[in-house]
Amino acid sequence: MSARGTELASGALDGDRLALARLLTAVENRTPVAEAALRELYPKAGRAHLVGITGPPGSGKSTLVAALIAAIREAGRSVAVIAVDPSSPITGGALLGDRVRMQAHAGDPDVFIRSMAARGHAGGLASTTGAAAAVLDAAGFDLILLETVGTGQSEVEVAAAADTTVVLEAPEMGDEVQAIKAGLLEVADLVVVNKGDRPGALRTAGQLRAMLSAAAPRTTSDDRPRPKRPEVLVTTATTGEGVPALIAALERHRASGASGATPAARLARAQALVWAIVGDRLRERLHDTRRRAGTDAALREVAEHRLDPYAAADRLIAELDRQAQ
Amino acid sequence: MSARGTELASGALDGDRLALARLLTAVENRTPVAEAALRELYPKAGRAHLVGITGPPGSGKSTLVAALIAAIREAGRSVAVIAVDPSSPITGGALLGDRVRMQAHAGDPDVFIRSMAARGHAGGLASTTGAAAAVLDAAGFDLILLETVGTGQSEVEVAAAADTTVVLEAPEMGDEVQAIKAGLLEVADLVVVNKGDRPGALRTAGQLRAMLSAAAPRTTSDDRPRPKRPEVLVTTATTGEGVPALIAALERHRASGASGATPAARLARAQALVWAIVGDRLRERLHDTRRRAGTDAALREVAEHRLDPYAAADRLIAELDRQAQ
Repeated sequence: MSARGTELASGALDGDRLALARLLTAVENRTPVAEAALRELYPKAGRAHLVGITGPPGSGKSTLVAALIAAIREAGRSVAVIAVDPSSPITGGALLGDRVRMQAHAGDPDVFIRSMAARGHAGGLASTTGAAAAVLDAAGFDLILLETVGTGQSEVEVAAAADTTVVLEAPEMGDEVQAIKAGLLEVADLVVVNKGDRPGALRTAGQLRAMLSAAAPRTTSDDRPRPKRPEVLVTTATTGEGVPALIAALERHRASGASGATPAARLARAQALVWAIVGDRLRERLHDTRRRAGTDAALREVAEHRLDPYAAADRLIAELDRQAQ
Repeated sequence: MSARGTELASGALDGDRLALARLLTAVENRTPVAEAALRELYPKAGRAHLVGITGPPGSGKSTLVAALIAAIREAGRSVAVIAVDPSSPITGGALLGDRVRMQAHAGDPDVFIRSMAARGHAGGLASTTGAAAAVLDAAGFDLILLETVGTGQSEVEVAAAADTTVVLEAPEMGDEVQAIKAGLLEVADLVVVNKGDRPGALRTAGQLRAMLSAAAPRTTSDDRPRPKRPEVLVTTATTGEGVPALIAALERHRASGASGATPAARLARAQALVWAIVGDRLRERLHDTRRRAGTDAALREVAEHRLDPYAAADRLIAELDRQAQ
């Protein structure tokens, strides 16, 4: 095990922000340091309330998250934010907006904001954010907000894996965005119409309530029961109006989690984490220097359509099995 | 092997559209029928030009795709479209727009349009669309357009795995969309400013050219070389203006693929396909009735924070290794 990982884990538990930041970088890069630290921290996590916040571009997610941070701090609770960064699928990098939001809470040890990018791993986003949430949870944050743009499949999955999923809408959005909305609503525990000071906000909220009550009782891909129709709230994030009501609704949803919603979400998160690690390990085995040539050849033959992908998969599995013996 | 798979594969090769549609459903659901058919069809694929088309909501992707279909058909070539459907992350389902576009080409055997949704598999989107593209490729379509909303990580990856990736922009988009743009540009082989009849379109194109020429020479996550800066084109999809120039640019990019871009993209697609199958097989092994209890217990312990995810992964791998012996 990595001594560095143990050191960063202790630092994170002691409230050392630099250690926490370094550890999250290790988690993002899936290094051995992250593994060592997570092995220690994971059993200490499980106390925080994970809140997914998603919605189409332009619905005002970042502003609402800033308003939530302020309200949560006023209530004397600590909060961490993981913003899944859409600014760059390849290089990652923080949005300017985060740095601005960060400044408002500079020096507050009970606020931590972090941007994350998934880097081309299959299922990478879900497992990386799951591991990062576990680190922040173990570090003692009361609430962890997972902010994602709600138009991509994986981003929606990340948000939906939270204990409570908030879907943002804004009045008067374009047609394509409307189409996205219908899908998003399926994962919502709470629906928030933001930009409540705009004309049409109350009408939009009314339409959403009508849509939701017309919909059939819902089940989800992970068979997570959603016993109730989601509440529809109206906020104006820029002024803070409606934000205390949203926080109260988050609490109510969490309290109702005793009904079973929370364990299923946690199982889904655990599954994503564990499968990503299994996948990484098996890929490492096949990319081991002695075996790399065989793996590369199989993939190249598939790329050139000289081998079908099932036959290639059979070969790789046979190789894994040989190594196991 | 599945006789039904062989039957659908033959049908798809013979231009039977119903067989093709059924086969794509099997591919989406990852059934044994799909496996049998793909084993036969995959070696017959590799001839089509795969074009990824992505961009933020509101950039007019669907309208441009419709204009491309018309222009490709005028040139006497056949075209299939895979629209990765953002309307519902959970239930899938076709966008109304597709049905409308479909009607314009009803009865034309050389146009095939299909919506697809990824269903919660890790890396599912890339492998499902890769397999669907292989089926359509084997079925003889000259061009295959992969249309995705360019705000999610996995959607961007899908588009970027094409031979040629087109990134759409529209004049005057909001701030959050601008942030997304920067990331999208990194995967672009061609940049298209659509809605060219709007004020600001030429200015937007000029700004994009300036941004792209200021940027450092690019490499990508898959080390795919991108020897040239992407061309910036202006189209007005609603009138068809600029669409023939776009088709010519697609051809030029494909011809330049001899430089190495295409083999790397094909290798990335092959990798996504093969790893998804390996993952499915190994998960099946662990969910085998005799072993399921152990797998479920490990995942539950992780969900309850009684076991760390690395220890759980070690257990699952040990179980896989035991089975191999």
